[in-house]
Amino acid sequence: MASTLLSRQLTYVLQQNLKFSLPRSRYVSQPANKTDVDVEFDGPLMKTEVPGPKSRELMKKLNELQNQESTTVLWIQSLMQARPGYNHPALVKLLQNPQNVSSFINRPALGCLPPENYVQKLSETLLSIAPKGLKQVQTMSCGSCSNENAFKAACIWYRNKERGNAIHTKEELESCMINQAPGSPDITILSFMGGFHGRTFGCLTATHSKAVHKLDIPAFDWPTAPFPTLKYPLEEFVSENAQEEARCLEEVEDLIVKFRKKGRNVAAIIVEPIQSEGGDNHASDDFFQKLRNIAKKHGCAFLCDEVQTGGGSTGKFWAHEHWGLDDPADIVTFSKKLLSGGYFYKDELRPDMPYRIFNTWLGDPSKNLMFSEVLNVIRREKLLDNVNESGKVLLQGLKDLQVLYPHILSKARGKGTFCSIDAPNDAIRNTLVLKMRNKGIVLGGCGEKSIRFRPALIFKPHHAHLFLNVFSDVLAAHK
Amino acid sequence: MASTLLSRQLTYVLQQNLKFSLPRSRYVSQPANKTDVDVEFDGPLMKTEVPGPKSRELMKKLNELQNQESTTVLWIQSLMQARPGYNHPALVKLLQNPQNVSSFINRPALGCLPPENYVQKLSETLLSIAPKGLKQVQTMSCGSCSNENAFKAACIWYRNKERGNAIHTKEELESCMINQAPGSPDITILSFMGGFHGRTFGCLTATHSKAVHKLDIPAFDWPTAPFPTLKYPLEEFVSENAQEEARCLEEVEDLIVKFRKKGRNVAAIIVEPIQSEGGDNHASDDFFQKLRNIAKKHGCAFLCDEVQTGGGSTGKFWAHEHWGLDDPADIVTFSKKLLSGGYFYKDELRPDMPYRIFNTWLGDPSKNLMFSEVLNVIRREKLLDNVNESGKVLLQGLKDLQVLYPHILSKARGKGTFCSIDAPNDAIRNTLVLKMRNKGIVLGGCGEKSIRFRPALIFKPHHAHLFLNVFSDVLAAHK
Repeated sequence: MASTLLSRQLTYVLQQNLKFSLPRSRYVSQPANKTDVDVEFDGPLMKTEVPGPKSRELMKKLNELQNQESTTVLWIQSLMQARPGYNHPALVKLLQNPQNVSSFINRPALGCLPPENYVQKLSETLLSIAPKGLKQVQTMSCGSCSNENAFKAACIWYRNKERGNAIHTKEELESCMINQAPGSPDITILSFMGGFHGRTFGCLTATHSKAVHKLDIPAFDWPTAPFPTLKYPLEEFVSENAQEEARCLEEVEDLIVKFRKKGRNVAAIIVEPIQSEGGDNHASDDFFQKLRNIAKKHGCAFLCDEVQTGGGSTGKFWAHEHWGLDDPADIVTFSKKLLSGGYFYKDELRPDMPYRIFNTWLGDPSKNLMFSEVLNVIRREKLLDNVNESGKVLLQGLKDLQVLYPHILSKARGKGTFCSIDAPNDAIRNTLVLKMRNKGIVLGGCGEKSIRFRPALIFKPHHAHLFLNVFSDVLAAHK
Repeated sequence: MASTLLSRQLTYVLQQNLKFSLPRSRYVSQPANKTDVDVEFDGPLMKTEVPGPKSRELMKKLNELQNQESTTVLWIQSLMQARPGYNHPALVKLLQNPQNVSSFINRPALGCLPPENYVQKLSETLLSIAPKGLKQVQTMSCGSCSNENAFKAACIWYRNKERGNAIHTKEELESCMINQAPGSPDITILSFMGGFHGRTFGCLTATHSKAVHKLDIPAFDWPTAPFPTLKYPLEEFVSENAQEEARCLEEVEDLIVKFRKKGRNVAAIIVEPIQSEGGDNHASDDFFQKLRNIAKKHGCAFLCDEVQTGGGSTGKFWAHEHWGLDDPADIVTFSKKLLSGGYFYKDELRPDMPYRIFNTWLGDPSKNLMFSEVLNVIRREKLLDNVNESGKVLLQGLKDLQVLYPHILSKARGKGTFCSIDAPNDAIRNTLVLKMRNKGIVLGGCGEKSIRFRPALIFKPHHAHLFLNVFSDVLAAHK
């Protein structure tokens, strides 16, 4: 395969170069010791700017078939993407094991015809990392479907409570067929300004990060609460931030009451542990504990969207585990790093009948099989410890750079390697991301002007130093 | 793998048995000549009823983790499911090719970082079978997401027309962030009673097949038109059926006008070529041609949902190709048999900006890679011809059985092998499906009382005879 060949060539060329170029002292950061050779990556080496001529040609062709202006890079070998990293030998071995052939080539209708090893695989994988207090799991194909079905599970649970768990009426069965109440009820999902929960009609209604996602698409009349706008570093603005959080929590309760009064009861509250797409907005553990209690007080399901935060990059497998909740979330959704979607839920949110939460594929056992190996690697290589260690280096480095370049950088923040930093505006942010890409490091933007860091779990402290050195160069050259 | 071992044992035992049992003359049907040995299957051999003791045990365990009452079978080797059949050697070879390792183990964010071979693979696969007149393609992960995003594409297109392709206003950008008009507009999607388009909030609003799918889930106030209730066989009731179709088309136009008057313009009409989940309800080519023209007349996008009908089992790759439309559909959605979801669309429905139709995965290149091999097999083995040939045997057999058992069977109907037949009620339908399952043949139910046939594309005429013989036995024994 051309890209693999290229990668080998690059690695070779790079190794030759490194003999002469290391150690470099462009910045406070230092190269750290390397321990794993298996999946090692010595650093980016660029032959052209990104996208290069070959990628530009392919992107032009792709753009003939669809709007692909979002495409940035076609075949860069990236350090900063994917978990636990591209082409991991453990996954190659898994794929080549003849016992796994059937899982890859026969896609089953999981809801009707799950494969023989499905229960065992679920136990070994998803159930082995289930958030505390949640024993049920439902697999789905993607993050949007996970949130949509989590909303559905919450609505079914809520309506069953409302009707006193009595059997549904003939009127309900008939009216739902034409999208009318009481069968299609006017209940709602409360979400937060700045939140992102997906792009299909239900979870897009709960999404409020950028207008481009929502414009021209019909939405439900569901309540939107303000998310706290905190000052960073959090530890320096504890009391101001607590005030802001109290304001938002009050607004949440007001909205629940207001919507109840207009006959649109709130069945669930959905929140991200860190608002990611919306700009890596954090809130305190106290805020989330209180929010969870408000949900309980008003009989709403408490949904925690871990599609972006779940999987280990905050230093715990689930970001909401940082909060220390007394009563667990009712539903926790996941996707992305878990290679396929789904959600964990409390026993009481189990649907009362088959086919209410259902679709043809309900996920993909081949992704689950791969995830089992990803989990093995995470455990064997102690990657959560690694995330915490690398995260410290990364965040400290960002804080140092923010001191060195206060006119360019602010609000360095993060948990684990799930870090971010702000530029003065979106133009400068985009320029920095572009310059870093041309140095071979893929960063992302989020919110209005934030740069987000989402390295793989195998991102080691010396990778953090490597990144910080390159970033330092780019910042020094930035005018 | 246990199931593969079992399959080999079964095949052996069966072959021994066949020596003594063939030819059997239980029914008008005959064993046909076999031509392909590669992926051959001689017929079901059952050791226990289905689910057997091992499956029951696994299902019990699975039910501890989730509501799995929809699960029927755990490891039956089925002739009647999946296309082009389980464990096809061409797919095994594809998986074992080292060049393909990367596609299987590295799941990319397709919208930003498509793999190098992506354009080529799209051209070889999806574009090579694009419905006439549609040159754009968007991949998605599942059928629901395909329809949700097709709705979004139609809404964006419709609103751009409404604003005269002027740039969106500040008011639109701000109001959409809180789910209010004009940014979140009151436009609608018209769908048909009996239709099924998926289970997420947007496409669930357009779904009207069974109450269990919709109950307790909030829905949009979108128009629902009656779908023609035709008499079968269609060729005997041409004029009555034409009248019924005219009535429904009139209702469609009335609804468009009525909804326009209440400020809820219809942006799109969505329809299945055969209402599948809703009971395998057919309509004439003339009906669909006229429906397409109504959409055009009123400026609505015409969406053809081929999630279940697409992929060859109606005897053409796309079921709507049977209609002979002058002006193609605006959007055609697919999933299931194509191994991953997506939709084709006309150039004018191309989104005007990046990130409006977007998500992290946007499908899965490994499924597309497998689909390229599925297409090779379909072409090499002329499987569409095979479907037409087997479909004739199957439908004729069903018609013969309906003459022999008029108190049990009625309305034999179908295109290609996409056939179905009605039982007198759901209880008898379910009993027949259960009895067939215990004979090793997996059938499905659809609508209130229909049995649907969805054999693999490799289902040969002699498989149809094999099935008909077993079905004949079950019907003869039915009391």
